[in-house]
Formats: sequence, structure tokens, C-alpha cells
Amino acid sequence: MKKIANEVTVDRVRIQDPFWSALQERVIREVIPFQERVLNDQVEGVAKSHAIENFRIAAGLAEGEFYGMVFQDSDVAKWLEGVAYSLTVKPDPDLEARADEIIEIIAKAQQDDGYLNTFFTIKEPEHRWQNLHECHELYCAGHMMEAAVAYYYATGKTRLLDVMERMAKHIISRFGEGKERGIPGHQEVEIGLMKLYRATGKPEYKEMARFFLEERGKDPDYFYKEKIKRGWSHWGAHNEDPMDVSYNQAHKPIYDQTRAVGHAVRATYMYTAMADLAAEDGDDKLYSACKTLWDNVVNQQMYITGGIGATVEGEAFSEDYHLPNDTVYAETCASIAMVFFAKRMLEIEADGRYADILEKELYNGTISGIQLDGKRYFYVNPLEVNPGISGKVYGHNHVLPERPGWYACACCPPNLVRMVTALGNYAWTENETTLFSHLLVGQRASLTHADITVESEYPWEGKVIYRVEPKTERFTLAIHLPGYVKPHQAELKVNGEAVEVAAILQKGYLYLDRSWKTGDVVELTFDLAVRKVFANGKVMENAGKVALLRGPMVYAFEGVDNGEDIQTLRIPRELSAKTELCTEGRLAGNVILHLTGRRMVTGGELYSESRPIKRLANMVAIPYYAWGNRGETQMRVWMLEDDQ
Amino acid sequence: MKKIANEVTVDRVRIQDPFWSALQERVIREVIPFQERVLNDQVEGVAKSHAIENFRIAAGLAEGEFYGMVFQDSDVAKWLEGVAYSLTVKPDPDLEARADEIIEIIAKAQQDDGYLNTFFTIKEPEHRWQNLHECHELYCAGHMMEAAVAYYYATGKTRLLDVMERMAKHIISRFGEGKERGIPGHQEVEIGLMKLYRATGKPEYKEMARFFLEERGKDPDYFYKEKIKRGWSHWGAHNEDPMDVSYNQAHKPIYDQTRAVGHAVRATYMYTAMADLAAEDGDDKLYSACKTLWDNVVNQQMYITGGIGATVEGEAFSEDYHLPNDTVYAETCASIAMVFFAKRMLEIEADGRYADILEKELYNGTISGIQLDGKRYFYVNPLEVNPGISGKVYGHNHVLPERPGWYACACCPPNLVRMVTALGNYAWTENETTLFSHLLVGQRASLTHADITVESEYPWEGKVIYRVEPKTERFTLAIHLPGYVKPHQAELKVNGEAVEVAAILQKGYLYLDRSWKTGDVVELTFDLAVRKVFANGKVMENAGKVALLRGPMVYAFEGVDNGEDIQTLRIPRELSAKTELCTEGRLAGNVILHLTGRRMVTGGELYSESRPIKRLANMVAIPYYAWGNRGETQMRVWMLEDDQ
Repeated sequence: MKKIANEVTVDRVRIQDPFWSALQERVIREVIPFQERVLNDQVEGVAKSHAIENFRIAAGLAEGEFYGMVFQDSDVAKWLEGVAYSLTVKPDPDLEARADEIIEIIAKAQQDDGYLNTFFTIKEPEHRWQNLHECHELYCAGHMMEAAVAYYYATGKTRLLDVMERMAKHIISRFGEGKERGIPGHQEVEIGLMKLYRATGKPEYKEMARFFLEERGKDPDYFYKEKIKRGWSHWGAHNEDPMDVSYNQAHKPIYDQTRAVGHAVRATYMYTAMADLAAEDGDDKLYSACKTLWDNVVNQQMYITGGIGATVEGEAFSEDYHLPNDTVYAETCASIAMVFFAKRMLEIEADGRYADILEKELYNGTISGIQLDGKRYFYVNPLEVNPGISGKVYGHNHVLPERPGWYACACCPPNLVRMVTALGNYAWTENETTLFSHLLVGQRASLTHADITVESEYPWEGKVIYRVEPKTERFTLAIHLPGYVKPHQAELKVNGEAVEVAAILQKGYLYLDRSWKTGDVVELTFDLAVRKVFANGKVMENAGKVALLRGPMVYAFEGVDNGEDIQTLRIPRELSAKTELCTEGRLAGNVILHLTGRRMVTGGELYSESRPIKRLANMVAIPYYAWGNRGETQMRVWMLEDDQ
Repeated sequence: MKKIANEVTVDRVRIQDPFWSALQERVIREVIPFQERVLNDQVEGVAKSHAIENFRIAAGLAEGEFYGMVFQDSDVAKWLEGVAYSLTVKPDPDLEARADEIIEIIAKAQQDDGYLNTFFTIKEPEHRWQNLHECHELYCAGHMMEAAVAYYYATGKTRLLDVMERMAKHIISRFGEGKERGIPGHQEVEIGLMKLYRATGKPEYKEMARFFLEERGKDPDYFYKEKIKRGWSHWGAHNEDPMDVSYNQAHKPIYDQTRAVGHAVRATYMYTAMADLAAEDGDDKLYSACKTLWDNVVNQQMYITGGIGATVEGEAFSEDYHLPNDTVYAETCASIAMVFFAKRMLEIEADGRYADILEKELYNGTISGIQLDGKRYFYVNPLEVNPGISGKVYGHNHVLPERPGWYACACCPPNLVRMVTALGNYAWTENETTLFSHLLVGQRASLTHADITVESEYPWEGKVIYRVEPKTERFTLAIHLPGYVKPHQAELKVNGEAVEVAAILQKGYLYLDRSWKTGDVVELTFDLAVRKVFANGKVMENAGKVALLRGPMVYAFEGVDNGEDIQTLRIPRELSAKTELCTEGRLAGNVILHLTGRRMVTGGELYSESRPIKRLANMVAIPYYAWGNRGETQMRVWMLEDDQ
């Protein structure tokens, strides 16, 4: 095996898409400045951040105490990474100047030996590196490495990159073969090190990533021994359990892990780094481990929205097929992590299964985390919400019916920022012969063999046009055909001439290998029928139910459109749904579905031998990602089917 | 309003019933001696009790420390009450002698001022009566009063009755109008005081009960003020929240409470005492309050098995219609409390709705708490169990797939003992003119107007014969016709001559007003068809589902009979079930159901556009109470219906 394709960085792809451009703009215009004010403690009424002030104090530029989570630094890192992509998408000298200032503060907060972490620098310098399990110094370092690389790509400036190279060298001096055999409590540094490796070409960063990955699970008791050795706990009574080796993904070496277990974001960050390393090193064994874990996540543990990590307890994976809709966790960050994982898998193999999940996450389980106006966020992305129960009753407390403004543990909002601003990074990979288009997103991409402008009506219509300006005459353009499109339903034309889809389709990609001329036009069209989807019989929560999808979009039913007690509604067996493009209101720009369903009407008794009476009912479904934007109301994705 | 009928005590009814006699015998032969050994710390491998030793220490008969829950005394009380009924059902001089010994110890543990509570006597005498909220002195007193009255009825001995009268007087000297305005944290003393009143005829006990009931909720902040005043908490970090006034049923005066809220057992004990007092005093206002609460419990908050208290958090009522099958609480004790409540309501009004619930609880949600062999017990009575999830995954931890042997907080096992042994107490009420038969249980009853022998094939067949030996010539025999029997489906014969059922049916009772002769035979027969029951559309968990019932018995499907993934099974729309009386195995003696259902077969994918394939499937349902007796296996009561 070898890596089949390299990534295409954000700066080479300008998103020009009716769906995504608006979201990118909102994120750049609203969210990044809002988060900057939060990080600077300038927003009233939200959980205090203090994250930048922590850096100032550590840098000796201010007096005060550390405040926030032990991993508060990572909020600044994720924001900076988002800023980097944002500057690429939309240059903003003022924002860049402010980011430079913050980077200067960060640089000053770095210790002489390269160490960078404000919690330990300010508060417990004597405890540095003693509690990898709970204290996430490596996690914070990983995020800041990602920020450093992104900022370097965006601006060409190496200030933060230099800082993080020094930190990486500090880490390398401490951990590894013949040194301390540590592993991170929250995986992430592996991703950062891989990015640092690609940005600098220095193999020691990649080797450090490999050590952290391969060391994991060799000694399942590592965290327990670490705890005994240090004799203190960061979280007190709420300390994490070092004995829960599965939860910590330290139960087995990564090559022997066959099920996704434990904290979902940590797991998926680890898988991402594994895939990244497998790609870089052409490591078959590692890719095989990635595939095993991918299959378990996607085929046994993923909500139809792309949500992963079904249980709130530890924000973790649950049992296979245990996918409750109403007590779900499905953290936004975990879906974002699946985007990263899918992207790295696509660098190893252009398999439509990976691109399908990439697409599913991008259009559903990730962006459901952000309100349509960009101002409020979900951690938890339920598939069923019942006001009066959700957010209120035991077991449902974490499932909020509306998005809150900010969180004390603010991981998801900045993670969304960096994903949305870096969308161009997921659109393509390329190698010497082939350009792989993974997403049907409108854009202008500057690739090795060609500049390509894509006009897209996706996700609302199955119509995408690629206008090719070749730089090389002969190359292959491989376009991902979404897995739900049957080959005979798709039409592909090159310069108006039909090409037989089935003949050029391999593992979900349409391979156009030809001599290209400027002005060549590839037009892909397919019908976006409303699809009824059934869950595996082992998913108890979805027995007898169906979900409606159209294109990549999962649909949801809300009480605000469908009246009270939406659990009494039934999807007709013979479905005939009409689409409508909303032109006004909160959902403007979205395609909604109208259908004639049934409502099962019961009497007032709690239990009765009288069969519920079936009445026709007008039903409306909206794209899942847009739920919860019109006040507190019932919502569900999976609906019982009327079997008659 | 006035009380329509008096209770018929246990000693006047000898159960001779194919269903109940065996259970009574098992309880008397197995459970009572087992619990005695537990209370004496003679059983290895179960949670230590120390309850009798606590009394010995408090009595100065032994040295040592108090051990157990602050309300550990109540375990001895409930056991003694069960022993009393047991001695009535089956005299046992040895057991009685041992009970007398324990009563002597209890008597010696009583303080000079009448106070009786081993925790405070041994451990914190200075804290007596300071923490009614958490420390349950009144609760323990109430249970010991119930034991004292039962033991007095069973044996004629007044030793314990005298002790508890002294304790009652001590309570009266302390609490009431112009004295301390306390209310119990866990209602129960109100029941005990009412029984003490009836046994002794002394009105001060009834008035004390009325004070505790009517004082409740007058000052919603009572427990909060109590806490501030005393400045200490019994449970430390886990102390109960005195501000959660609804949870404490102290949010409003009892007359203004319209929904059942908070701890389900406490609430239902309170309703029981309210109904008892309403009956004794002919108190319309209080009966009206009881009816309002009854209606809410039965029509909005009760599982079809009779289970109440849907949430584990605080063992409490949840929201109306929130009746999750798999994360249910439905404590055995709460169903037992509903038996008590129904019994008291029947003393006010012979309304079949009350008798129907009494029957539902007795045949389903109470006795599901005890293993068929009598040796293991459930606190929690789920309507759906999934091994691998139940008892294991967050939100499901409390839902055990198999009955454990004993509990540190051992409320349910002795509560079952006293209910099963006192079954005769629920069978009848009577007044000057009428004998009300509430249960179709085989028995020999000695009533004011007649001795009546009942031969019953219930609950497996709808055939009951009453043989009457009158003591008075003219009286009315009123027999409860279960609410699920339509009048035209029942046949009633007196001495072989048919009587028109509809003509003598009033509010669920068949009134036979006639001159009786020795040897008169009343024969009630009705068909026990398998009934398909639908839940109200507001019960989200049961949308599209049906439950099967036959007679009073709710049926359940277990994996052991129905193969894997029972959620893929469907009940056919046209149901044709065959009954079989099991003659061997664990379920011997039970009628099980065989039907041809459907199994929806899906492929291996997690999600698919392929409609599941429908196959015929042989299905077996067993009586709900008997579930969980054949190893860990899936179980569910509510099954999706195949609508075709």
C-alpha cells in the first residue's frame, strides 16, 4: 500500500457554493469575532473564558490567577486555527494583526525549555508532565501545533510554528523509546505532530506521533501506574478512572483494537492520526487497523445523521447497535472528528464509502451543532427531542431542546469554526495522475493539473458542473458519485456528450481519464428522490421506523410544523413527497418536504382495547441540521411507518 | 359521603387458591425464615442487616455500634407484620415464640418517654426529632405500629401494641396544633396511626394522622427551615434536597395536590392514609382529593403492569405519559402501595375501577418483584430488558435483567411478604347489608352475614363459584366483575339459574340481593380471550405497539422463547393466540400464549433502503410476573404490531 493522494490545502480552494458560502461567511463574520470576544472575556452573560488572559499571565504580561479548565489553552488554539483558515478564505488585515498579537503573547508564555501550557506554568509548575491522563498538556500542544501549521500556511509567518517546533522538541526530548513511555489522556497531539511533520518535513515529528500511537495499550495499566506514582488527582472526587482502560482506549495496542470504545472524540482523533500516519508511511498494517475501526464505527455505532458516541456517560461509544434517539450524545466534536478521519482515509484509498461519510457528517451531524444564525451551539445532537422531557428528566438532562450560547468546556464551537472555514481542505486530494473530487461543492480549485471551477446546486439538486482549465494535457478527473445514487440514475456529460456512468465508476468514483482542453465542461446530474431508509433490526430504537433522506440531507419532523404528539404520525408506505424551497423565514434557502401521512388518534384513556383511528395528516420535514431554530418544539428523525 | 364498608381482616379469610396458595406457602416456608436469618445476620453473601442486633444494643442486651440505614428498624417491623399474617394463615408456635422474643427486645429498646428508634438511641440521642426530613423516625414508627396491630390481631397479644401506643403518645405529646408542627420526610406513620386507631378505638391516633396529613404543604419550606435550624445533614454530600418541595410532596396542602409527584412510595403511602382517614371520617373533601390523585396516577402515570414511579432519579413519578419501558423504575414497593391505596378507596366506594387496579397490581407489578421460587427480588420492574444494555449502560444501570438476592436498603422483599400473607385482607369489605367480593380468589371467608367458600380457576380461567352458608337470611352479595369483561360476555348463575348480568351490574359489581339458603351456589363464568391493548398516543414509548393481556395477566415476550432480537418481532393485526397450561419447568402452572407473528429481517447494513423482509415467526408470551426466571434474556411487554 502507498498513499494514493495528497491533501489539497485550504488556500487552493475557494468555496463558491450556495449552501456553504453563506455558512462560511456567517462563521467568519459572526462566529470568529464573537469567539474572540469570549476568549477575551468581553461577552456578558456567557461562561467566563479567561483563556487569553491565562497566556498573558503565563507570559508575565499580566498579574492574576489561572482560570478555567486545565485544557483551557486549547480554546485559543482552535480559534487561531479557525482564524488561519478564515484569513485564507477572506483576508482581514485587522484580524491578522490581532492574531499576531495573541501569538506574541503565546510565544512569551513559552518556557525556556520549550514547554508551553498556562495551567502548569501559572499554577502547578511542579506538576508538569505528571498527569498525562487528566491534564491534557499533550492535547493542548496538539491543538496549538495544528493552529501553528494552519497559520503558517495562511500567512507564511513562522512565529507560532517556531514556538510549536520548540514545544515538539521538548516533548521529543522527554518521551519515546529509552525515555519516558507516556501516552496522552486525550489524543490529539498525534494529529498535531503529523501536521508539523508535513509542514516542516522533519521526520522526528512523525516518529513521535508513531510512538504515542503504538505505545498506547502496550501497558493497559499505564494511567493507573501514573496515578500511583504521582499520588494526586486533578479532578478530585470526579477524577477520571485510570482503571477504565477501554474508556481510555488503552486496553489493547492499536493494532488489536477492533471496536470503537470510550470517549468518542479521543478515539476518533486517534483513528485520524493512525490513518494519517498509515498514509504517510504506506503502512498496510496500520491502514488495516484503521479499516477495522472505521467499519465498526460506521456499520455498528453511527447514527444516520453521522452522530457517534451514543452515551453521555463519558461522552463515549456505547454498545454496538445501541443508538437511542432521545438519550443520545452524538457530540458535535465527534462528528467533526469523523470528517478528519474520513479525509485521512481518502488519502489512502479513494473509496466512496469514506466520501459518503465525509458528506454525511458535513451536511448533518456537524453543522446541526450551530444555529442557522451562527450564534448558538449544540454539544449534543439528538435525533428525538421532547420538550418537558429532554433537558429535564433524568437520563435526558444533557439533551437540550435549544442551542445554548456558550459552554464552560467550549470545545464544539471553535471546532465548528475550524471545520467550516477549512471546508476547501476536504474537497480534493490529488496525485501525479489523478484529481479526486470528494465533495460536490461549488468552488474554484487550483490543483496541480488544472484549475477547476465547480458550479453546484447540491445538496438541494443533483446538478454539478466542472469547468476545467488544464495545466497538464492528460490527467484523470475522478468525481465522487454519492453512494445513494444508482449508476443508471446518474447522467454524466463531457462537453455535452453522454458518458456511460457504470463504465467509469469504481468504488464510488467516476474516472474521467482523457486529454483535457481549456473550457472542457463535465456535467453530472442525478435525480434527488426522497429516500426512505430502514435501520438494521438490531437497532432497537428504530424498529418499525423509517428516516427520510434527500441527497445527503437527513430530514427531521418538528412539532412546529406537524402539530402536537408527532409520535402519533406515520409515514405512508407509498411515499409521495413534494419538495419546496423555502424562500422566507428562518429556513429560507432550505428544501423542505411535504407529504400526506397518517395520524393515529386515540381516546383519552391511558390504555384501551380500541384501535387508534387513522386520519390523513399533512406532514412537513425539514433538513436535520436546521432543527431547533424555531423555538422549543418536538423533533424526531425516525418515524414509524404506516405499513398499509 | 360515608364509609361504605369495613375491612375484613386476614384472620377471617383463608386463601385456598391454585395461584395464590402456592405463593403464600412459598413466602411462609421460604421467605419469612430466610428474612429472619438475614435480619439476624445469619446469611452469608447478602448485604449485612444488623437490624435485630441494633434493637439488642439499644435495649442494653448487647454491646456494639448501630449499623445500617437510619431507617433499619423498619425492616424488622415489616418482617414482624408479615409474621403476624403468616401466623394467621399457618400457625407456627416456634415462629411465634421467636417473634415474641424479638418483641421483648423491641420493648426493652423503648426509652422511658416512649421513644423508640435504635439509630438515635444508640448513635445520636442528642439529635432525636431534629431531622424528620431525612431520618425517618416517624416512618419506622409507622411500620412498627402496623406490625403491632397485625400481631395483636394474629395472636391477641398486646405487648407490641402497648409499646407502640406509648410511642404514639410520645409522638402526640410532641407534634400537633400548639406543639411542634412537624411532618414526616417519608410518609407512613399516618397509615400506622390509622391502624392503631382502629385497633384501639382511640381517636387521638386518628387525629394525629390527620394533623400530619393536613400540615403537609401548609408551609412548603418546612424541611428547609428544619435543616437551617438543626445545622446538620444525615446524608452528607448526598443529603436530600429540602428545597425540592414537590419531590417531598410538601409543595401544596394535600387538598390542592392534583398530580402525583415526587417519591412514588411516599406519595402512595400518603394517599393510602388520606383515603383511610376519608373513609373513617366520611370526609368528602378528603375523598375528592384522593380521587383527583388516583385519577392522575392511574390515567396518566401508570404502566400497564401497574408499575408507578417512572424515574430512578429519586424513585419518583415523572411527567404525565412519560412511561419509558426500558429505563423505568416502577418499584415493587410502589405497586404494593397502590394495593393499599386501592383497598382504602374500596372502603369508601365499591367502584370497579379501584378493584381493577387492585387486581392489576396483585397479578402483575407487585409479584414480578419476587422470583418464582421466592428467593430473589426486584426493586425495579421494567417492561423491557435488553441484556448488554440493561443494568449496564448509563440510564439503564438500575434496570437489572435478573433478580438479586437481597438489598442494603431492603424495603421491597419484606413488603412483598406482608402483602402476600395479607392477601385475605384485600378480598372483601362488608357493611350491614352487603358483602363486597373484590377479588376472584379461591378462599374460605367468614363474614358477618355468611361463610362463603370460593372455588376459583382465576386468573387462568374465568370461572368462579361462590358457595354460601348464610348467617343472616337477607343480604347482598356484590361480586366484582373485572372491568375488561363485557357484561354480555359474562354468565352468572344462582343455583344453576341464569341471572341477567347487565341488570345487576353497577360500577363494576354484580349485586345479588336475595334471601340466601345454605348451599346456595353462585357461579360466575366469562371467557378469557387474549386482549390486545393500545396505549394513549401521548405515551411516546408505546407508539405503534400493543400489549397482550389475558384476564388480569399482562403478558411479556422473552428472548429465551422467541429467539434473538425480539424487537424485530411483530404481533399480527388479526391475532389468534393459543393458550397452553405449562405443566413442567420453571413456568409450570402458568398459562402461556402461542401465536404466529412476523419477524422483520434486515440485511447486515446499519442503514438500508431495502425494506425488511417479513417472515412468519412462532411467538410465545408468558405472564409478565414470571419474567426473568430462566436466565438473562431479552424481555418486552409492548410489541410493535404488524399493521397488515
